[in-house]
Amino acid sequence: MRSRREVDVASLVGQAREGSPRAVARLVSLVENAHPALREVMAALAPHTGHAHVIGLTGSPGVGKSTTSSMLVRALRARDLRVGVLAVDPSSPFSGGALLGDRIRMADHALDPEVYIRSMASRGHLGGLAWATPQALRVLDGAGCDVVLVETVGVGQSEVEIAGLADTTVVLLAPGMGDGVQAAKAGILEVGDVFVVNKADRDGADATAREIRHMISLGDRSEPGLWRPPVVKTVAERHEGVEEVMAALDKHRGWMEERGELRRRRVRRAAEEVRAIALERLRARMGDLGEGGRLEQLATAVADGQRDAYAAADELVAALA
Amino acid sequence: MRSRREVDVASLVGQAREGSPRAVARLVSLVENAHPALREVMAALAPHTGHAHVIGLTGSPGVGKSTTSSMLVRALRARDLRVGVLAVDPSSPFSGGALLGDRIRMADHALDPEVYIRSMASRGHLGGLAWATPQALRVLDGAGCDVVLVETVGVGQSEVEIAGLADTTVVLLAPGMGDGVQAAKAGILEVGDVFVVNKADRDGADATAREIRHMISLGDRSEPGLWRPPVVKTVAERHEGVEEVMAALDKHRGWMEERGELRRRRVRRAAEEVRAIALERLRARMGDLGEGGRLEQLATAVADGQRDAYAAADELVAALA
Repeated sequence: MRSRREVDVASLVGQAREGSPRAVARLVSLVENAHPALREVMAALAPHTGHAHVIGLTGSPGVGKSTTSSMLVRALRARDLRVGVLAVDPSSPFSGGALLGDRIRMADHALDPEVYIRSMASRGHLGGLAWATPQALRVLDGAGCDVVLVETVGVGQSEVEIAGLADTTVVLLAPGMGDGVQAAKAGILEVGDVFVVNKADRDGADATAREIRHMISLGDRSEPGLWRPPVVKTVAERHEGVEEVMAALDKHRGWMEERGELRRRRVRRAAEEVRAIALERLRARMGDLGEGGRLEQLATAVADGQRDAYAAADELVAALA
Repeated sequence: MRSRREVDVASLVGQAREGSPRAVARLVSLVENAHPALREVMAALAPHTGHAHVIGLTGSPGVGKSTTSSMLVRALRARDLRVGVLAVDPSSPFSGGALLGDRIRMADHALDPEVYIRSMASRGHLGGLAWATPQALRVLDGAGCDVVLVETVGVGQSEVEIAGLADTTVVLLAPGMGDGVQAAKAGILEVGDVFVVNKADRDGADATAREIRHMISLGDRSEPGLWRPPVVKTVAERHEGVEEVMAALDKHRGWMEERGELRRRRVRRAAEEVRAIALERLRARMGDLGEGGRLEQLATAVADGQRDAYAAADELVAALA
């Protein structure tokens, strides 16, 4: 039997690129577990990345994110595209919940080998979403997905984070949830490239759409030359409005490519990723200095009032160089 | 008129040490706003720190944290000690809420110049609690507080963080809130030095106390030579049980001093503080590399698939040295 630690990276990446859902799942697990082979995986995938259109999907609980994902997956499959879905729940510290979620979401597309669906919990780690999600995205991208949907519950920071990860950010709203006001508060208005008012068969859908349009018209977004986010109404359960959403996504991608914005966003995203990995590395290196080393000496001086924490931090940074 | 930026640090620190609540408040504000004079403030305070007994107070919403704080403040004042209270709400991104909180909490001790009460919101920053709280603690310590109470809502990570900041961590529970089970889950059991079952006049108080005692007896804590956390029952509203809590706090402090544990905890705390400041500094330095600089070049290579993020991070770390 093989040890759990041994991973044949070249063959795994090869299988993933040939369309093995099992190999893709394995690679995402390596990311989640920060497996030692991760470096090698990322190096092997790098030349194959940059193809996928990454679409972020965010909204409050209950607006219909899963249903909308499912609707979009079907539409993308009708175009014969390979699709990845990454469902990130930043509020859940339990990976078990994510697994359950997988099964429920799978239902519609479980037997389609061209659809990879994966739930990730951020497991309560600070920076968990920021760190693992971009790498999981790269796996799906490198495995040949044409589109990757990243779905996340809109809680505070996560909309902003998802907007940093996605080429196109879709903000999902529903009538009668006070979403308009929430949107303004949480900065959703600034991050959304496409707004979707789901459950549009309910009372108040037109009012919600109007409110969002009005707010967009008041913001910087209304300036000429900038992308003016469309507001689309859907009933995702009945696949109503799916063509309009797809058209809005195509249009946004085209607009970004024309302006060089797609590349700019991707460079920005890569910068965040590189920065996060570099900080993680520096943090680990400081840890090495900890036991009986420089950090402990400095900390002792601070605890004894012989040095302030800033002066000590200066010395620590100098010691890393 | 003086500009807002100019701060006469020496005189401010002097006034704070002489007991001016206004000067203390000003210093804590400098911490919260990451004012440029902060370095100088910390350097001036350093020789005066290390005196205060830092007591962390954590528990779920509704267990009576403010009432318990107030009860302890009164008991500490009866011993003629100078007391600081730092109420940290890691869930609130609004500093306005903190201000309101201040006023409500003030009520009992508003006119006592030997009690400094301050609420801090972490403002939704990642690492907000980790970064600003230890420095605010140092301000109160350096200003001559004998005891500083740090009060925080127990949500996920915050108990663990507070335990990292405090000399003595008090975990507050109340009957009938399912706290026992929650405690086990959230790792409260490992971080508590003293357990207080508040609202002990309600049904189920004895059962809650028993459950916690039982859980402690099962854990590592029951080994000889280790601190065995006492479980105390209180009705904070009526100041019942305050002597028992004070006795438990005194005993824990004595135990820590005997064993050298107090110093160990403080060195560990200083190490975390120094590490956090050093990382912040490195992060800022990476930012400087951003525009048109090394990070942008590396990010562009990653976005184009010419380099993987790990290799790029290695180069970035090397460039910082």
